[in-house]
Amino acid sequence: MAVKSAGIPCRVVGYGHRRSTLEKALASGAIDEAAAGPVEAVKGADLVILCTPVGLFRQNLADVAPALADGVIVTDVGSTKRSVVRHAKELLPNHAKFVGSHPMAGSEKRGVDFARADLFHGARCILTPDDSTDWDALNAVAAFWQALGMRTTTLSPADHDRLVCDISHLPHVIAAALVAMQTDEALALAGKGFLDTTRVASGDGALWRDILQENGDNLSDSIARFSARLIKLIKLLQPEKADELAAWLDAAAARRAALLAAKLKEMNPD
Amino acid sequence: MAVKSAGIPCRVVGYGHRRSTLEKALASGAIDEAAAGPVEAVKGADLVILCTPVGLFRQNLADVAPALADGVIVTDVGSTKRSVVRHAKELLPNHAKFVGSHPMAGSEKRGVDFARADLFHGARCILTPDDSTDWDALNAVAAFWQALGMRTTTLSPADHDRLVCDISHLPHVIAAALVAMQTDEALALAGKGFLDTTRVASGDGALWRDILQENGDNLSDSIARFSARLIKLIKLLQPEKADELAAWLDAAAARRAALLAAKLKEMNPD
Repeated sequence: MAVKSAGIPCRVVGYGHRRSTLEKALASGAIDEAAAGPVEAVKGADLVILCTPVGLFRQNLADVAPALADGVIVTDVGSTKRSVVRHAKELLPNHAKFVGSHPMAGSEKRGVDFARADLFHGARCILTPDDSTDWDALNAVAAFWQALGMRTTTLSPADHDRLVCDISHLPHVIAAALVAMQTDEALALAGKGFLDTTRVASGDGALWRDILQENGDNLSDSIARFSARLIKLIKLLQPEKADELAAWLDAAAARRAALLAAKLKEMNPD
Repeated sequence: MAVKSAGIPCRVVGYGHRRSTLEKALASGAIDEAAAGPVEAVKGADLVILCTPVGLFRQNLADVAPALADGVIVTDVGSTKRSVVRHAKELLPNHAKFVGSHPMAGSEKRGVDFARADLFHGARCILTPDDSTDWDALNAVAAFWQALGMRTTTLSPADHDRLVCDISHLPHVIAAALVAMQTDEALALAGKGFLDTTRVASGDGALWRDILQENGDNLSDSIARFSARLIKLIKLLQPEKADELAAWLDAAAARRAALLAAKLKEMNPD
């Protein structure tokens, strides 16, 4: 839908394992053609985009590798990048050029029914080249996401997985754990603040299972660092630490206010 | 503003330590009269409502105690209840009847500039009577909040502080710690999800310092339980625990979905 809305002159071929999804995508004009399988979908394609949960990327790449056209560019939309870059290097033929992408847009809602042409507008897309990445392919993939309204930046796959862990994967498990720990008695008292804090926990379990497991080494480290920070906070609850606690809370509030201002400016530059 | 908007026939006298706040409250019609001090404010009042940060309640009660009219009802809007109930018992004269209130409404914004007549509408107010509470006073305070559009429930001061700790005070420190732990590099990648998860961290530091310190015993316990849960999660990041992790994530998502549905129904009963 975003490609069509951006007026990019191309033929969009879609494949997904549910027939009903393909029919809805055809009906909405998001795709021009529904393929019978992954091999049929990539035949003659200039650009192939993997959009399944990250745990399926290895199988996807193995499936489509023999059918890829000469000079094809392959990318993905996964939330972890080290593994897909490794799998692509191992499984794709030399005439195919892989560039990892992480368009940071979406919502806790999933499926073709929640598709939106403006999903990517103003959001960020991280590209994760490494030493072996073809520069023309990298520029082409960056131009593609920018044509959909995204701002692109570049990180190594390892830096991507480490930074995104703290800012996205850790908040996800924290939100889920915060819901899981509540008694029904406490949940009955939940207000708007609690609903906001835990919104990201509403994501699809299998999708997030793949992300969290693929980034398990970084996430273990993030969880350990975060827990240590919380435990240290207990000391600030002593009456003699009142000023220190207030200063710590004010610093966190000021940091978030600065972040919010920066994000609003980023999205509305004028 | 809520009292005036509800059409309750009464005279509202306000006192606050900033003259500019009182002038704005007078100008907006929120109060009929600005008192010169706490003693002047409570003279002849039928209902006294303490609205400062919880750490000032003890001093407030000591200040107004000698000036309270016979049969006056005193309540508060604090987010912790054990201490204010204890202070009231110790400091108020026998002819004054105290009932603790916690109207669970508000936002991370603070001050008279953000005042809204509909702030309490559809939100919950917890009343915290104990063995010595006057039942007529309890009913009067409940009727007052209900007249402003709130749904009232009753908990003991101890149960209130324990339950509200898990559902509100713990999420607050988690949000603040999540902001505090980020590097600038990671913050640059923050999206809408991170802003939602950390919204409650934007509250006023001194206000929250008081709440967290007054509820320090419960909060230490909540932090320890939450951290233990997070650390246990690290085990589920092993590949052989994939099904268990997905089930855990789905259970949290389903629980939050049920909570959201219940809250929406509560706020829009029809």
